[in-house]
Amino acid sequence: MTRTDAPATYAPFEVLATDGRARRGRLTLPHAVVETPVFMPVGTQGAVKAVTHQHLGDGGARIILGNTYHLHLRPGESLIERMGGLHSFIGWPHALLTDSGGYQVFSLESRRKVIEAGVHFKSHLDGSARFLSPESAVDIQAALGSDIAMVFDECLPYPADPAAVADSVALTARWARRGRDRMLALRAGVESAGPDGRPLAPARLVTPGQAQFGIIQGGVIPAERERSVALTTDIGFDAYAIGGLSVGEPIPLMYDIAGLTAGLLPADRPRYLMGVGTPVDLVEAVARGIDMFDCVLPTRNARNGQLFTADGKINIKNARYAEDPRPVDENCRCYTCRTTTRAYLRHLYVAGEMTAAILNTLHNIQFYLDTMEAIREAIHFGRYASFRQGFVERYERAGASA
Amino acid sequence: MTRTDAPATYAPFEVLATDGRARRGRLTLPHAVVETPVFMPVGTQGAVKAVTHQHLGDGGARIILGNTYHLHLRPGESLIERMGGLHSFIGWPHALLTDSGGYQVFSLESRRKVIEAGVHFKSHLDGSARFLSPESAVDIQAALGSDIAMVFDECLPYPADPAAVADSVALTARWARRGRDRMLALRAGVESAGPDGRPLAPARLVTPGQAQFGIIQGGVIPAERERSVALTTDIGFDAYAIGGLSVGEPIPLMYDIAGLTAGLLPADRPRYLMGVGTPVDLVEAVARGIDMFDCVLPTRNARNGQLFTADGKINIKNARYAEDPRPVDENCRCYTCRTTTRAYLRHLYVAGEMTAAILNTLHNIQFYLDTMEAIREAIHFGRYASFRQGFVERYERAGASA
Repeated sequence: MTRTDAPATYAPFEVLATDGRARRGRLTLPHAVVETPVFMPVGTQGAVKAVTHQHLGDGGARIILGNTYHLHLRPGESLIERMGGLHSFIGWPHALLTDSGGYQVFSLESRRKVIEAGVHFKSHLDGSARFLSPESAVDIQAALGSDIAMVFDECLPYPADPAAVADSVALTARWARRGRDRMLALRAGVESAGPDGRPLAPARLVTPGQAQFGIIQGGVIPAERERSVALTTDIGFDAYAIGGLSVGEPIPLMYDIAGLTAGLLPADRPRYLMGVGTPVDLVEAVARGIDMFDCVLPTRNARNGQLFTADGKINIKNARYAEDPRPVDENCRCYTCRTTTRAYLRHLYVAGEMTAAILNTLHNIQFYLDTMEAIREAIHFGRYASFRQGFVERYERAGASA
Repeated sequence: MTRTDAPATYAPFEVLATDGRARRGRLTLPHAVVETPVFMPVGTQGAVKAVTHQHLGDGGARIILGNTYHLHLRPGESLIERMGGLHSFIGWPHALLTDSGGYQVFSLESRRKVIEAGVHFKSHLDGSARFLSPESAVDIQAALGSDIAMVFDECLPYPADPAAVADSVALTARWARRGRDRMLALRAGVESAGPDGRPLAPARLVTPGQAQFGIIQGGVIPAERERSVALTTDIGFDAYAIGGLSVGEPIPLMYDIAGLTAGLLPADRPRYLMGVGTPVDLVEAVARGIDMFDCVLPTRNARNGQLFTADGKINIKNARYAEDPRPVDENCRCYTCRTTTRAYLRHLYVAGEMTAAILNTLHNIQFYLDTMEAIREAIHFGRYASFRQGFVERYERAGASA
C-alpha cells in the first residue's frame, strides 16, 4: 500500500484574499498548485478535444477534467491503472479532476435504471449491461489516480417534481455516505463491504493524496439545497461541489441557487460549480463565492465555429468575416490571435478543415483561462465589483465590434 | 507594377554536393532558403490538415504546397489577393509552392472536358461550370503569390494508350508554351493575349520573384519522356518537375522513369518529382537525382492511424498497441514521440478523438522531414549508398519492432 505517502490534509486550500463574496485562493493538489478561481477544460476521454497537452499547458491550464463514465467504458480503468494511472497514460503532468460518472449515466435516460445499490445502465458504445455504484465510482477513480475524485450522486433534470427532488437529495446523501466510507477504507488500506454486506474487491489509490469532493443537490428548491448541504457536510468531504445546476433552469435562478448554496458551504474549502458556464456565468458565480468551474462550452462551441471575445460571441462562419483582417480578439495572447485573421479562420471553417477546430479551440480555452486570470487579479486588488460590471457590460453589448 | 523587385534569376539553385546521382542543394526562394532534397507537406486548402503552422515550422518545414484548384474555388484567388496573397492570408511566413490545378481537374473525370484552349469542368463544391487554361492557371497562381508556380499540364491516368500519351505530351508542350508566355508577360508587365487572340485581363504577380516550373509528362514510355523533356526545356522554365508518375504504375517502373527523366533534365536546376511518395520512394528517387517531393501520404495516413517509423509502418489501431508504453518511434524527436505512448495514441484513435489526428500527423510529418535531413547529411558525407541500403533494409524488414 501507498498509505505512507498520503497527506495529513487532502487538497489543502488557502484563501488569499476576498472581495465581497468573491475569493482568491490556492488549492494544492498532488500534481499541481492551482490558483483559484479556476476554470478546468474538459478532457472527456483523456484528451481535451482538438488540442494537445502542450497547447493547454502553454495556455496556463494546470487542471483538466476527465470523465469516469467514458474512461471506464474505454479503455477501462484497469488498463489505465496498469499504464500507471491517468496522468501517466495520457501524459498530462498537471492536475486532473475526474467526475463520478453519475452525470453521464443519468443522461442515458432510457438506457438506465436507478436502484438503491446504484445504477444499471447500458453502454452507449456496445449496449453491454453495466452497473455503477457509489463504491465502484470511488474504486474506478482510485485506479485512474486523479487529483480530485467526485462522489457518486444523482443529478435530476429540470424541471423536477419537489417530491422527486427531496427523494433525490436523500438518495444522494445515502450514496455520499457509502462513497465516503469506501474512500476512507481505501485511504486506511482496510477492507470494506458493499451495501449487501459482501466484501468489495481490493482497490488501490494510484494517487495516495487523491481528494474526494462531495456534491450538493436539491434542484432549485432552497430548502432542499440547505438540507443537502447539511447532510453532505455532516458526512464530511475534502471539499464540496454544487451539482444539478445548468441543466435548463433560468440563468438568474441558477445564480441564486449557486449563491445560496455557496454561502452555506464551509468557507475554508473550495467550492466547485459543476458544468458552468458562459464567460458571464463565471464572473457572476465568482461574485457569489464559487472557486472552481468546468464546462464543455469553450471547446464544443469552438468546433462549431463560435468564438468568445471580450465583446461577446462571434460566429466565424458568418460571411461578414470573409475579408476581416483582424484577429478574433485584438487583446488576446493566444496562438490563434497572434498569428491568424478572422478571414483565414472563416475560410478554414467553411472548408471543413480540422485545423479550424484546433485554432478555434486554442482561442476559446485561452479566453476562458485569461478571463479567470483577470478575475483573480481583480479580487487581489479589491476591485471585483467594477471588474464584474465592466466585463458583463462589454460582453453583453452585442455586436459592438463583431 | 512590382517589376523592380524581381530577381535576375528565379529560384537560384546551388548544388552543394553530389554522391552518385544524389544531389545536396540549396534553393533560394522569395520566402525561404530551402535545403534539398526536400519534402513539401501538402496544405491543400491553405492548411496542412490537423496541424498548425507553428507545428510545421517547429518541425523544420520551410516550404509547403497549396492546391490551386481548391483555393480557386474557395475562397477564390481574388479574395486571397485582396488579403495580401496566400502567405499573408494563411499566415505562413516560409515558402509556398502551388500546383497548377491540372491534376485535380483531371481527376474529376466525368466532370471535365479537355479542349485545346483548356479544360471545362464542374466544381466539386457546387457543380458550377468552370474553365481553367494555361493562362488562367498562371494568373491564379500570380494572385496567390506562391514562391513556385507550376505550369498547367495534362496528367494521364495509368495505364494509357501510347497514342494518347504522345498526344498528351504534345498538348502539354503547347500549353507549356502558352503558360510560359503568360508568365513572361506578367514579369515584363506587358499585356498578352489568349489563344483566341483576345487580350487577357490584367494580372499581377503578388510575389515578383515567383518561379515557374515546367512539367515533364510522357507516362511510362521512355521515348515520350525524352520528347517531353526536349519540348519543355526548349521552352525554358526556371526548373522542371516530373509529373504523371505515382498514378498506379508499378513502383520499379516509377523509379526507372523518374531516374531516366531526371538524367535528361538540366543539372543546374532542381528536379521535382510530383506526388511521391513513401519513405522508401524518397530515398530511391534521391538516388536517381530528384531534389523535391510532395505527397499527401504522411498527412492522410496519419488521419487513418497509419504511422511511419524507421522500422516500417504501424497501424496504431491494432490491439497489440493497447498497452504498449513505447513511443511510436524511439529515435523520433517529434512532440508526439517525446510525450506520448502507442497505448495512448491507440486509445485516442479508437475513441475517435481529433487529437489522434493532430498527434499522428505531427509524427508522420516529422518522420518525413527528418528522413530528408538524414538524406541530406548522407549525401554531404558521401555515404549515400550505404545510407540508402540501410534505410531500405530496416524499413522493409516488416514488423521487426512493430
